[in-house]
Amino acid sequence: MKIIEGEINTPKGFKAFGIHCGIKKEKKDMAVLISDKLCTAAGCFTTNLVKAAPVKWDIEKIENEIKAIIINSGNANACTGIQGMNDVKTETEILSKLCGVKPENILVCSTGVIGVPMPMDIVKEGIKNIYSMADYSIQAGKNAAEAIMTTDTVPKRICVQFESEGKKVNVCAMAKGTGMINPNMATMLCFVATDAEIDKKLLKETLNECVKNTFNMISVDGDTSTNDTLIVLANGESGVKIKDKNNDYYEFKNALCFVLEKLAKMCVKDGEGATKLMEVNVINAKTDNDARLIAKSVVSSNLFKAALFGQDANWGRVLCAMGYSKADFDPDNVTIKFKSSKGEILLMDKSNPIIFDEQKAALILKETDIFIDIILEEGTAKATAWGCDLTYDYVKINGDYRS
Amino acid sequence: MKIIEGEINTPKGFKAFGIHCGIKKEKKDMAVLISDKLCTAAGCFTTNLVKAAPVKWDIEKIENEIKAIIINSGNANACTGIQGMNDVKTETEILSKLCGVKPENILVCSTGVIGVPMPMDIVKEGIKNIYSMADYSIQAGKNAAEAIMTTDTVPKRICVQFESEGKKVNVCAMAKGTGMINPNMATMLCFVATDAEIDKKLLKETLNECVKNTFNMISVDGDTSTNDTLIVLANGESGVKIKDKNNDYYEFKNALCFVLEKLAKMCVKDGEGATKLMEVNVINAKTDNDARLIAKSVVSSNLFKAALFGQDANWGRVLCAMGYSKADFDPDNVTIKFKSSKGEILLMDKSNPIIFDEQKAALILKETDIFIDIILEEGTAKATAWGCDLTYDYVKINGDYRS
Repeated sequence: MKIIEGEINTPKGFKAFGIHCGIKKEKKDMAVLISDKLCTAAGCFTTNLVKAAPVKWDIEKIENEIKAIIINSGNANACTGIQGMNDVKTETEILSKLCGVKPENILVCSTGVIGVPMPMDIVKEGIKNIYSMADYSIQAGKNAAEAIMTTDTVPKRICVQFESEGKKVNVCAMAKGTGMINPNMATMLCFVATDAEIDKKLLKETLNECVKNTFNMISVDGDTSTNDTLIVLANGESGVKIKDKNNDYYEFKNALCFVLEKLAKMCVKDGEGATKLMEVNVINAKTDNDARLIAKSVVSSNLFKAALFGQDANWGRVLCAMGYSKADFDPDNVTIKFKSSKGEILLMDKSNPIIFDEQKAALILKETDIFIDIILEEGTAKATAWGCDLTYDYVKINGDYRS
Repeated sequence: MKIIEGEINTPKGFKAFGIHCGIKKEKKDMAVLISDKLCTAAGCFTTNLVKAAPVKWDIEKIENEIKAIIINSGNANACTGIQGMNDVKTETEILSKLCGVKPENILVCSTGVIGVPMPMDIVKEGIKNIYSMADYSIQAGKNAAEAIMTTDTVPKRICVQFESEGKKVNVCAMAKGTGMINPNMATMLCFVATDAEIDKKLLKETLNECVKNTFNMISVDGDTSTNDTLIVLANGESGVKIKDKNNDYYEFKNALCFVLEKLAKMCVKDGEGATKLMEVNVINAKTDNDARLIAKSVVSSNLFKAALFGQDANWGRVLCAMGYSKADFDPDNVTIKFKSSKGEILLMDKSNPIIFDEQKAALILKETDIFIDIILEEGTAKATAWGCDLTYDYVKINGDYRS
């Protein structure tokens, strides 16, 4: 497997585009992904009881073969009552007619402000325009990645390729963050296109395995959004058939997990107001679940996130967050290290606080990517979670998001 | 029952004091509460698996009759290994000798930085000094309330009195906040002294009932501390015996719940960096637990807390936080109102978004005390929770707490 230059429409037989249709003031706000052939699809969706209208639609329709996804930013179409679902239907009717399929072959994703009805005149016009502009070019894919952004500061995409008997298989994805990020079973918006051929059951299983260790292990602010959606479309155009546990399967799973991990980390690194990415590695935990609870609790602690922003080696807050994680471990046998490209520093050794060199700690914590190692002595389970710091800018961005 | 001017040592037979012993640079950092007679005691303690040494001591010793509590701020004596527990023992030995009781009749509370050994030379000297200074005066009580503060901006105390057949019963309390506040089963540090006579079992029961609806319904930042402790001492000096379900019992319970609610709200209002107090009232929920989950989830949402700071009527974030609370309710039948002393505004009516007057909303949200009403149609259960906004100053305070 290798990383290649590419966009969401790089896999064979996918077109895409991104435009400004007028939901936002100036920035691009509508994207489309269209496959030449109907695709096998799999998805993960928010666990929030309050689900946006497009999420409700997609959860049902993802069982069908999928032709295209229409995506908008600037408006989440969430908490919009009956009108919200009618608007989703209208969107799918328009695009399905243009594509020559049924509305149930179309998925819809929205992200942005909650509780404001969709400006449907603009949206209807937008769908017609964007359909006619969608193509296979790199620039079209770039436009799509830009059009799904909200408070993201950079577009997030990644493309990988592997070969099977001389045939190339592409797995390419794009995502948007960046607040309300505490996915569980899903993520903000993330789209993966692949030209692999794979049956629905296997695709779904593989996706779940990858999501468990990638998007479900990140947190920006602990708020699970109403719109979190992750969709994979596989159109089979590469001519490579992924079968259960053959070599190609492991190549494919590796590629899918890799792109999801990359995007999950990009989302956290570009978390609202974030200046630092933290990676928390828990090893020697009793069970996988204990390891995951601990890692997730540390990346979610406001107090530790603020300490990280302040470049303060406040390992006490790490131990505190471990303690309320509901994981089972011996608090009297915990080792904690902080690391970055500038070196590593031992802060707690089997629960004995170490008198450490504050200058060295400061040097390490000045870096952008900080690694927290938590070493237990309970068993062999491990987990990794990713988070970001809590900054003035998080407060600023979210204090006046609607205005 | 009436509110009176008073301090923690206002109930008959209680002495107190607060001094600067040298743990902090300049501010008072040691308090003591001593009863003339041994007291019946009850307490609630942190649910964090990582418990500070004094918490471990108190959980065990609270079963005994209690003579005095020695409290310090500036150092939490948490994550301090075996030395931490040895230091607690030393503290109780010194104070118990001075008081003429056994070490197991002494409780210890610490709050402040985690993971730094206690400066025991200073502490030992401090205990001897403070013991000799403790008295019954209002000023001594004021000093105690100041000495338990960490990042608190104001001391927090309240005193109430009721009469029974001409005899006066006092219930007086002091507390400190203000970060790491997401108590469950307990709180930061809170001390209640009363001259009521009450047996241990009834005191414990009454305390639990009051805590459930007061300290367990507040959140500043979702971080449950290693040191949360709430202790009630009853020395019986009023001559009024509180018996199960007699009139005096209801007077006493009312007084205890009242002081705990007042202090809980003071802690939230003085939450780190907070500029606003929010009170979330959930009514017509299916069960008490559902009501509590919803109320607690809303006051804990970083996104809504930031919106509150920005004075943004972002009710979508309220609904979103309800949705991930794990409570059972119909998301299509929710009514949401925001209120303050400047009026009220309906934002969502049975899950239909209301087009509201933004100017009026701005006027309402400018106030310091904001009330969020959430009306369901599931049943008759209700709950109230309190929280604060998320501000630049929260990040600032916690970005460099140790320095």
